[in-house]
Amino acid sequence: MNLPYYAVIFTSTRTEVDDDYNEMGTKMVELAKKQEGFLAVESARNDIGITVSYWQSLESIKQWKQNLDHLDAQQKGISKWYENYIVRICLVEKEYSFQK
Amino acid sequence: MNLPYYAVIFTSTRTEVDDDYNEMGTKMVELAKKQEGFLAVESARNDIGITVSYWQSLESIKQWKQNLDHLDAQQKGISKWYENYIVRICLVEKEYSFQK
Repeated sequence: MNLPYYAVIFTSTRTEVDDDYNEMGTKMVELAKKQEGFLAVESARNDIGITVSYWQSLESIKQWKQNLDHLDAQQKGISKWYENYIVRICLVEKEYSFQK
Repeated sequence: MNLPYYAVIFTSTRTEVDDDYNEMGTKMVELAKKQEGFLAVESARNDIGITVSYWQSLESIKQWKQNLDHLDAQQKGISKWYENYIVRICLVEKEYSFQK
């Protein structure tokens, strides 16, 4: 990915309601990948969940936030799946990596 | 946390070598918490691991990267624990949250 780009850090704690959560997660990743400006997404969960998605611009993040199917998922997240969450929108200024 | 602040996103894939990995992780979190400018840290792992630490400034991130005990941990990470990793240093520009 070419610097600078944006990261959206989504940190969440789940409720005990499962009800199509994983199915919706998979669907949202597929949908996000089709959005203009989408770069990548990565997720991990045990006690808490952290999903980081990477985007070309603030405009592409805004478009994705307002996508109709994504709005539906966000609403279900609030009413059913999440106890709490924090979303942070960040400008990635620097990166380095290691590969064995 | 008061905006703006910085996030360090550390995304990794582990090797199969365990050798004090969890012990070192706990020790590094305790040590990071004592650093000037440290704000918070959160972690999750299943297929991949994502650890995000939050800092007041780029200077505090630099100091932490150069901490001697942390340098020792970084070296062991490269020689033993990680198959690969990416570190991204980000300016948090915006945040919002939900609490049930």
